[in-house]
Amino acid sequence: METVNLAQKLSLFSDHWHPRIVGELNGQQVKIVKVQGEFVWHRHADEDELFLVLRGRLTIQFRDGDFLLREGEFLIVPRGVEHRPVAEEEAHVLLMEPASTRNTGDVGGERTVEEPERL
Amino acid sequence: METVNLAQKLSLFSDHWHPRIVGELNGQQVKIVKVQGEFVWHRHADEDELFLVLRGRLTIQFRDGDFLLREGEFLIVPRGVEHRPVAEEEAHVLLMEPASTRNTGDVGGERTVEEPERL
Repeated sequence: METVNLAQKLSLFSDHWHPRIVGELNGQQVKIVKVQGEFVWHRHADEDELFLVLRGRLTIQFRDGDFLLREGEFLIVPRGVEHRPVAEEEAHVLLMEPASTRNTGDVGGERTVEEPERL
Repeated sequence: METVNLAQKLSLFSDHWHPRIVGELNGQQVKIVKVQGEFVWHRHADEDELFLVLRGRLTIQFRDGDFLLREGEFLIVPRGVEHRPVAEEEAHVLLMEPASTRNTGDVGGERTVEEPERL
C-alpha cells in the first residue's frame, strides 16, 4: 500500500493530454492528466469515464451541449457517448475508468497513449 | 448527466460515518462521507476501497501500522485487509468502491448503512 499525494504526482510531469496511472482497484484505474487546448472527439464503447477537476476548469463538449467543470466538480460520461474535453488554460484532472480504457477511445490516432505509465 | 460539486453535496448532511452515493460508473460507486472519531475494525472480502481526503486528516489503521492521509491524498485498501478509519477532527472523504460494498464490511453491526442514499 502507498499513500498517493496528488499534487506530488502532478509535479512529476508537465506534458498535456498524457494520462498517468496513480492507482488501481477493482479493475479500474485512477489516472491524472494535465490538459490544455482541445482534445479529439471520441467515445468509449464499453467504459464509463469520470472526470474530476483538481485545478482549473475543464469543458466537456457533447454533440448537444457542453458541461463546464470547476475545481472540486466531476462528471461521469457514460459509455458510448461522444465527447471532447477542452480547456482554455491548463487544468489538472483526475480520471476514474476501467483499466481497458484508451484515451482516444474509438478514434485512435496520433494522440493515443497506448500504455500509460504508472507514477 | 450531471455536474457534481463535491462541496455542495457535502453541505447537504452533517452526520458522521454515513456515506452518501454521488456517482456510479462501471459497477463502482463514488461516495462521500464525513468522519470523526473511531470507526469499527472490518474488512471487505471482495472489494478494494479507495479513500481520498477532501478536507482534514484521516488515519487508516491496519493491524501492522497506520497510514495518515492529508487533504489531496488517497490510499487504496486491498480486498481482505482489515482496517479501521479514525479521525481526531472532522474530515471529509471521497470513497470509490464496488456498488456491493457495505461500510462495515464483514463485521456489520449498528453502524452499518445498508442502503446509502443518493444525493
